Amino acid sequence: MHPIDLIRKTRDRQPLTPEEIRFLVAGAASETIPADQLAAWLMAARLSGLSLDEIHQLTLAMRDSGERFHPHAGPQPLTAPAVDKHSTGGVGDKTSFLVAPIAAACGLLVPMISGRALGHTGGTLDKLESIPGLRTALSLPQLHAALRSTGLAIVSQTPTLVPADRILYALRDRTATVDSPGLICASILSKKLAAGLDALVLDVKTGSGAFLTDFAQARYLAALLVSTAESAGTRTVALLTDMNQPLGSAAGNWIELAESVALLRNQRSRLTDPLRDLCLQLAAWMLHLGGVAPSLPAALDRAERALADGSALDRFLAMVRTQGGDTTVFDRDFHQPAVTHTLLAPRSGYLAAQDTTALGWVVQRLGAGRTQPGEPVDPHAGIHFHARNGDFLALDQPIATLYASHPEQLPEAIALFHAALTWSDTPPAPTGPLVHSVLDLAAARQILSESPTQAHTPGHHAVI
Amino acid sequence: MHPIDLIRKTRDRQPLTPEEIRFLVAGAASETIPADQLAAWLMAARLSGLSLDEIHQLTLAMRDSGERFHPHAGPQPLTAPAVDKHSTGGVGDKTSFLVAPIAAACGLLVPMISGRALGHTGGTLDKLESIPGLRTALSLPQLHAALRSTGLAIVSQTPTLVPADRILYALRDRTATVDSPGLICASILSKKLAAGLDALVLDVKTGSGAFLTDFAQARYLAALLVSTAESAGTRTVALLTDMNQPLGSAAGNWIELAESVALLRNQRSRLTDPLRDLCLQLAAWMLHLGGVAPSLPAALDRAERALADGSALDRFLAMVRTQGGDTTVFDRDFHQPAVTHTLLAPRSGYLAAQDTTALGWVVQRLGAGRTQPGEPVDPHAGIHFHARNGDFLALDQPIATLYASHPEQLPEAIALFHAALTWSDTPPAPTGPLVHSVLDLAAARQILSESPTQAHTPGHHAVI
Repeated sequence: MHPIDLIRKTRDRQPLTPEEIRFLVAGAASETIPADQLAAWLMAARLSGLSLDEIHQLTLAMRDSGERFHPHAGPQPLTAPAVDKHSTGGVGDKTSFLVAPIAAACGLLVPMISGRALGHTGGTLDKLESIPGLRTALSLPQLHAALRSTGLAIVSQTPTLVPADRILYALRDRTATVDSPGLICASILSKKLAAGLDALVLDVKTGSGAFLTDFAQARYLAALLVSTAESAGTRTVALLTDMNQPLGSAAGNWIELAESVALLRNQRSRLTDPLRDLCLQLAAWMLHLGGVAPSLPAALDRAERALADGSALDRFLAMVRTQGGDTTVFDRDFHQPAVTHTLLAPRSGYLAAQDTTALGWVVQRLGAGRTQPGEPVDPHAGIHFHARNGDFLALDQPIATLYASHPEQLPEAIALFHAALTWSDTPPAPTGPLVHSVLDLAAARQILSESPTQAHTPGHHAVI
Repeated sequence: MHPIDLIRKTRDRQPLTPEEIRFLVAGAASETIPADQLAAWLMAARLSGLSLDEIHQLTLAMRDSGERFHPHAGPQPLTAPAVDKHSTGGVGDKTSFLVAPIAAACGLLVPMISGRALGHTGGTLDKLESIPGLRTALSLPQLHAALRSTGLAIVSQTPTLVPADRILYALRDRTATVDSPGLICASILSKKLAAGLDALVLDVKTGSGAFLTDFAQARYLAALLVSTAESAGTRTVALLTDMNQPLGSAAGNWIELAESVALLRNQRSRLTDPLRDLCLQLAAWMLHLGGVAPSLPAALDRAERALADGSALDRFLAMVRTQGGDTTVFDRDFHQPAVTHTLLAPRSGYLAAQDTTALGWVVQRLGAGRTQPGEPVDPHAGIHFHARNGDFLALDQPIATLYASHPEQLPEAIALFHAALTWSDTPPAPTGPLVHSVLDLAAARQILSESPTQAHTPGHHAVI
């Protein structure tokens, strides 16, 4: 088998066989296929598309390219269902810190392998590591032990898990081939499936802060993810959720964690209620798919109870302790940003819309994110938002509070923030629902059948 | 300027600026842009296409990526027009050995920078080097001196001439991106234009032995080449010529040279007359474009005379001597193949068609070609063809004589040869003209205007 023949086939829209896909992925993982040939194949896949079956095979081959986590195996096998939640990324998205403890408090195992901030979206690991002492680099035996003791763990990808994705993702990032639905699907699911999940809930964002701003494209990717994960034997649903404004009232690292703990402590506000609502829906689907609740209403009720009775908070604190973190930070004034600046409304009027991707870049520029993998992040940088879409603000009323690492970061951040807002004199149309729709396998199949050649049509994934 | 932005633009069919194209080509030549990013750009160009202007700019940037040959400059400038002929490659194509001496005998300079055999087509340099002692690796000053003394030279590309093409061509070969009309055009013309040509005659092959078997695709590439070369200031025409059977009666190395010398000596046969006719037409266009003859009929007449009066032969022998070759080989029995085998007709009937690409592979398998750059070739291997399309052969009548390097090469070669032939009981339709059409700038513009977006439409260059 020669790489050039596989490049030619994908280029010419001839499907690769499962053996050919395994050869390609094994060659990527072992670095025996040179990067230039992998790059040409990635661009061919990006432009000519991959079939649903190829995407499925690519996902499985990548999943199997390294070690896998087996929660129900080993000397002390765990019996509870392993369930996870994955988001395609947004601004202020801290749902992991609520849904994982809720699900664990209700008896599920949550082996959550998360990522770091890059570009305009924050990273769950960076947020969690703002807790002094907390480690996310657990080995697979340590992950197993953590799940046994607390039912949940939020950890970084190990070097041996899905090595093919590490190579291919870095290459996609360098070659403008990130935005292919098939490659996105295989990258996300190979890592999730390698964690030995029984069920998976996907939070696919759409709107101004999402990777997929277009609803139809987000829905197509959601359907692809559900169909592929189900084919691999993992019960999966996808929630298509709104990302036309930041989720909750905080975006950054520590301040997102503090907001999460406040919600786990049942401290509510008008600004964080939508976040709380989304967390409960995501957790409810985890419980329902994991077999803890016979129906979604029952699952929602169960999730609410875990939040109300403090058992989710207990699980969260247990996880922080197990991963070496100092839980006293939640009871003292830990947030000490170098620079604080309150942004005032430049006019009176309604906040009609927010360019949430631009706000994500503001968070990054303030020091909370990174431009290159490996850069340090400032745990204290970020933004507290004081208004949501549709709010009326008077002139000079506070819109947001910015926390920066250095004073010189402020002017650009302030200018970008103001440019990201759209004002109107009349009340804008009410914002749509936070959860647009939920796709199970039947719905996913319907969407994919309505566009059978979509995976092959460049036009349909040009801006994904 | 970042390579990834250029990859993204080409991927999304946004034209690159001339500055961006120069950045890309300079980065390729200096190896400062990594191969994986170049590979992704090449595949994006292959699938999304390049505009006519981008192809023009790419050609110029590649031409300027290294040293250039200036026949009309230097301490002893040459005054005659510099004219060359370039073929897109076929089987048995030895026209260079006739047209260059004819053109030189008529007063033109022919600085012919040629290539080596790879794949199913032979290499002019390999054929020429079957003459003992002959060197093709001339420096640019040596090329200048050779032109001054004899008017012609057939040499290899120097390391300093068009270094960007060396890098990009090797990469295209590894990444299934050879067959893009824009990339083919830039690769061919950058080298020809770097040789300082005043005029250029292109022989674009079409038919079963051509890279472009499809007539419309060959015609489109021909138009692209003429338009691009003319934009760069070189008077250019393209002849679209038939490659549905080998050109002449010999394919190999030495035997092609021997056939050429026989024609230069005015030894004619039914089998070589089409080759002779094509050479005269190509040479006539060189003379006409170079200003030696006021019309094509006058140019044809002048070319015939150079052949008839032996002046073309004299130029050829002078060139061989200047490049260190032993001219006595043409007067002794030099051809000593290790193995000779005569192929007999397996049936009586009409030779209806030949898969000329397959016959090219037979020549290669017999030892005359190579599978990897740098491999040695056997000067004595090859095929003498005894029949042309449309001929009637009796059972066991000789079809061809095969010359191999080793006896074990024969069985596969014989099987491939037989499989390449189509027989019929009735006379096949007469073969079309050898020269299908001639495109000048006006004709090229017309063809390109009829398909203004063709360079951008993947479907149109899928099989080039």
